[in-house]
Amino acid sequence: MIFKVEKKDTKSNARTGEIRTDRGLIKTPIFMPVGTLGSVKGVHQTELEHDIKAQIILGNTYHLYLRPGLDVLKQAGGLHKFMNWNKPILTDSGGFQVFSLSENRKLSEKGAAFSSHIDGSKHLFTPENVIDTQRIIGSDIMMVLDECTPYPCDFDYARKSLNLTHNWLKRAMAHYKNTDNLYGCSQTLFPIVQGSVYTDLRKKSAETIASYNAEGNAIGGLSVGEPVEDMYEMLEVVNNILPEDKPRYLMGVGTPANILEGIALGTDMFDCVMPSRNGRNGMLFTKEGIINIKNQRWKTDFSAIEENGASFVDRQYSKAYLRHLFVANERLAAQIASIHNLAFYLWLVKEARNKIETGEFSSWKNIMVKKLMERIK
Amino acid sequence: MIFKVEKKDTKSNARTGEIRTDRGLIKTPIFMPVGTLGSVKGVHQTELEHDIKAQIILGNTYHLYLRPGLDVLKQAGGLHKFMNWNKPILTDSGGFQVFSLSENRKLSEKGAAFSSHIDGSKHLFTPENVIDTQRIIGSDIMMVLDECTPYPCDFDYARKSLNLTHNWLKRAMAHYKNTDNLYGCSQTLFPIVQGSVYTDLRKKSAETIASYNAEGNAIGGLSVGEPVEDMYEMLEVVNNILPEDKPRYLMGVGTPANILEGIALGTDMFDCVMPSRNGRNGMLFTKEGIINIKNQRWKTDFSAIEENGASFVDRQYSKAYLRHLFVANERLAAQIASIHNLAFYLWLVKEARNKIETGEFSSWKNIMVKKLMERIK
Repeated sequence: MIFKVEKKDTKSNARTGEIRTDRGLIKTPIFMPVGTLGSVKGVHQTELEHDIKAQIILGNTYHLYLRPGLDVLKQAGGLHKFMNWNKPILTDSGGFQVFSLSENRKLSEKGAAFSSHIDGSKHLFTPENVIDTQRIIGSDIMMVLDECTPYPCDFDYARKSLNLTHNWLKRAMAHYKNTDNLYGCSQTLFPIVQGSVYTDLRKKSAETIASYNAEGNAIGGLSVGEPVEDMYEMLEVVNNILPEDKPRYLMGVGTPANILEGIALGTDMFDCVMPSRNGRNGMLFTKEGIINIKNQRWKTDFSAIEENGASFVDRQYSKAYLRHLFVANERLAAQIASIHNLAFYLWLVKEARNKIETGEFSSWKNIMVKKLMERIK
Repeated sequence: MIFKVEKKDTKSNARTGEIRTDRGLIKTPIFMPVGTLGSVKGVHQTELEHDIKAQIILGNTYHLYLRPGLDVLKQAGGLHKFMNWNKPILTDSGGFQVFSLSENRKLSEKGAAFSSHIDGSKHLFTPENVIDTQRIIGSDIMMVLDECTPYPCDFDYARKSLNLTHNWLKRAMAHYKNTDNLYGCSQTLFPIVQGSVYTDLRKKSAETIASYNAEGNAIGGLSVGEPVEDMYEMLEVVNNILPEDKPRYLMGVGTPANILEGIALGTDMFDCVMPSRNGRNGMLFTKEGIINIKNQRWKTDFSAIEENGASFVDRQYSKAYLRHLFVANERLAAQIASIHNLAFYLWLVKEARNKIETGEFSSWKNIMVKKLMERIK
């Protein structure tokens, strides 16, 4: 994996760049749609590529490990072939879902033991075996096992947790070096900065992570309930330490405003379920603000979902029609909203790129962060 | 609406033809995907047109009347504009759903009174107002209000019901003549043959219907539980009476084999929820027979869903991937299966057309009706 910074903004830490992987180029800053189980919910792979214009998607190791399972993925020749997606895939380590979904989970130096949320079967994720699993999935960008601390989290817990995360990291990096790429494509491994909302811990973690000189670095444990100012503060602290010549990936974030602020703070990669999940519930992100398409006010608004919207659904369907589909609980509703929101997120990061290139990023960003989060009644 | 028979099969009553409507040409025999609430479930309109290759779709008056309602549809300029579908639409009268879905329904000479299955609100469908409703929907082909008798149904009930249906028919035809097309396109009205499984009643009904010299005629009340031989017998009786130079539409039928037998008996139009509904449950219709894609046997079968299948999903996704999506309850599963099955049904009627044209229909049909209904374990 090769990362190259292309253009730096003069008024913020924003930058454009490109990540070269064996499965294609990623122009940064980039948003990665989440395809939990080998499918971005309600979206065909052709739509993902041609309408949403995704350059890289995310898969969840916890879910893929349980279903379809490693035997199937291995026989398929990896997730790319299995789902017929030829561009890059990033996978998380599975740790986050162990904490949020599984039962009877127990953390120890050894790893994370848990019972499957599907059938109760017992499993153990270790720093080593989640790399083996991600190798089999065929991820282009793999993540280390870490503990994502909850919020609020007292300092003592956060400090102990960070030690565990760093101990796991050491083993992960060693194991990564001792294992080979699968399916003929290069697989890289990103370490993850943790440390909750404590500046000292975040600094220590970022320094530790930076010392490994990985091809890219991730920031985890943010947007878990803390005030948004704390998130930006931690991000600033961390990004000042993480190497400038490596991509920085802010995990699981966030709203359109969060993404623009994240870019301004020098972050290059983002993923979040928000555009697809909130879309399925009728929340549309647009250039003019947020629409709750279920509202009565759209009942006879036959205008396009979004004038000059980023995908075909914006032109083909009206607000009134989409509202009707939501009210009538039709499957097509979630499909349209998912494509709309994901195409909007990809448009947003592309537009941020353009603005960084033309030197207009900061002023544009300040206008957009307000406008994008306004609710159009 | 103009119908022209093009080619007649010499060994059966099958024929090819074309229906010209103000919204485009329909090559018969044809299958019409069901878009109950202004959406073929899980399928984008672009997919319906370009991948499934639908030439006409069906809407359900009962559902559309309740949601989005006539005020919305009228303001939208009709269903075509509302859902952005420019090809022909056929609507039923709403009677069938009154009997199968609504509460507290009561039939009388006046019409069908019922309470909405959504909010319990009270409504009355009459032979006249269901035409007004279909005018507002903007249907290219409208249906008369009738009673679809259940199965089994004793002769006395069937006879009385038929009288009611014929009385309603008379009023419907009169009202149709006294009302105008909406939205600048011609709207035609099909009467419906009823009579349960009683030859005498079916004959009488077909003669009554034929006497109105409508632009097309429908056959209802079949495939409601009766033995398939009874259905074919009734269809033969009726089609021998209904005028040859008008399209014959067998309502709500059926399996691929039913459709081929229906074509052999001189039927031109079909609709059914089976391809989409059964698809959503994992049943795939293919040229080689029926697949239950949820079966364990497909777990690691990475071959295409159907070699030389009729749509892009067949080439883009494997059986193992589709099985995984069903097992994991992913939305994309139903989307893929719906497109596959509907494209298969449209392929089937197109192939029937080709075989009628080349004189091979009967022999081909006899092979296909067996093969198509075999279950590939």
